[in-house]
Amino acid sequence: MDTTIWLESLLTKTPQEGYELAIKLSRMGVKSTQPDMEVLKKLRPVYANDAAGLTAASQVIAINFQTISAANNYWK
Amino acid sequence: MDTTIWLESLLTKTPQEGYELAIKLSRMGVKSTQPDMEVLKKLRPVYANDAAGLTAASQVIAINFQTISAANNYWK
Amino acid sequence: MDTTIWLESLLTKTPQEGYELAIKLSRMGVKSTQPDMEVLKKLRPVYANDAAGLTAASQVIAINFQTISAANNYWK
Amino acid sequence: MDTTIWLESLLTKTPQEGYELAIKLSRMGVKSTQPDMEVLKKLRPVYANDAAGLTAASQVIAINFQTISAANNYWK
Amino acid sequence: MDTTIWLESLLTKTPQEGYELAIKLSRMGVKSTQPDMEVLKKLRPVYANDAAGLTAASQVIAINFQTISAANNYWK
Amino acid sequence: MDTTIWLESLLTKTPQEGYELAIKLSRMGVKSTQPDMEVLKKLRPVYANDAAGLTAASQVIAINFQTISAANNYWK
Repeated sequence: MDTTIWLESLLTKTPQEGYELAIKLSRMGVKSTQPDMEVLKKLRPVYANDAAGLTAASQVIAINFQTISAANNYWK
Repeated sequence: MDTTIWLESLLTKTPQEGYELAIKLSRMGVKSTQPDMEVLKKLRPVYANDAAGLTAASQVIAINFQTISAANNYWK
Repeated sequence: MDTTIWLESLLTKTPQEGYELAIKLSRMGVKSTQPDMEVLKKLRPVYANDAAGLTAASQVIAINFQTISAANNYWK
Repeated sequence: MDTTIWLESLLTKTPQEGYELAIKLSRMGVKSTQPDMEVLKKLRPVYANDAAGLTAASQVIAINFQTISAANNYWK
Repeated sequence: MDTTIWLESLLTKTPQEGYELAIKLSRMGVKSTQPDMEVLKKLRPVYANDAAGLTAASQVIAINFQTISAANNYWK
Repeated sequence: MDTTIWLESLLTKTPQEGYELAIKLSRMGVKSTQPDMEVLKKLRPVYANDAAGLTAASQVIAINFQTISAANNYWK
């Protein structure tokens, strides 16, 4: 895992920014397991063109969006 | 991810509108991984005619519906 | 998705009715992805006779039942 | 789904009884999709002798146990 | 399911003991579906040497650890 | 499971440290099922070069990050 700060806060201004942060968290989960960007670039077309892979990616984002939404008290 | 606003709020008037928003979130999770609409159109019949793919899609919606329901205090 | 009202409330009188609503939500998740009832009828025997498909279906129901149970304050 | 009452309450006396109720809920999720007991009996050895199937079954129980545990305020 | 008491409480002294309890719950989920210890012993090397099986096992533990952590108010 | 203390607390100073702890928990879930480090080293390239395996790993981290985030009151 790189040592630079990539996650300062779970708080975002809007739900949509919260959703984008959920996408970022999901990608960091992948990167933490496979840090080699070259490998990741090669794998991307594999799941991005696979129906099951896209649904699975959407599920990870959904789980992270639960966390972000709770952190932001659902932007209420 | 397109820069237009597509998620203004997690609040909806009714549970059913909340369920529709959960479907929308699930689809945005797919789009964020594969933004090419032509590819998505080709993949759609793949999972829409596959029992496991449909169950997986329903699961992502269920997870997003948990978030939306909590945001709306379960429309109580 | 059909425009008729199919989800008026998450509140039910009993836990068992709540479980039945969770089943309904799970099925609507499938229908929203594949609205063609003829296709769904053909797919049903596929997952209903497949051990992994049945476990997956039970999992989606379990996730929706979490939402319904929280909405009903666990019928306490 | 049979019309007999099979779920009176989510409350149990002990955590272990709560875990048993979580198992019951998981099985009802399967039954609601495949009500034919003869088919279920035939499928049982399939997933009960399959490592992935057993892990998947344990996951559904874990999700239902979350619901039951919250309902019982974690038996505190 | 054996009738001996194996789950007295969800409360543990430390987070690490809580994690161990989460592992125990995950295994009991498997045992409740396949009580034959001989079969389980034979299946263990199957998923313990399979990358997907290990990730799936870790996921079940993660779900049970959510429950245990909430029960212990996160050991705060 | 090794008897050394590896999980003292769920509390971390920052969200990013919380995410790193979520990764650690996810790996301990794998280790608890397969304690042999030699086997784990051999399996690592299998899922680290597999799109589905990486998404699954990211999902386990997401679930553990939910727990850690709640424990830290979302670092608010």
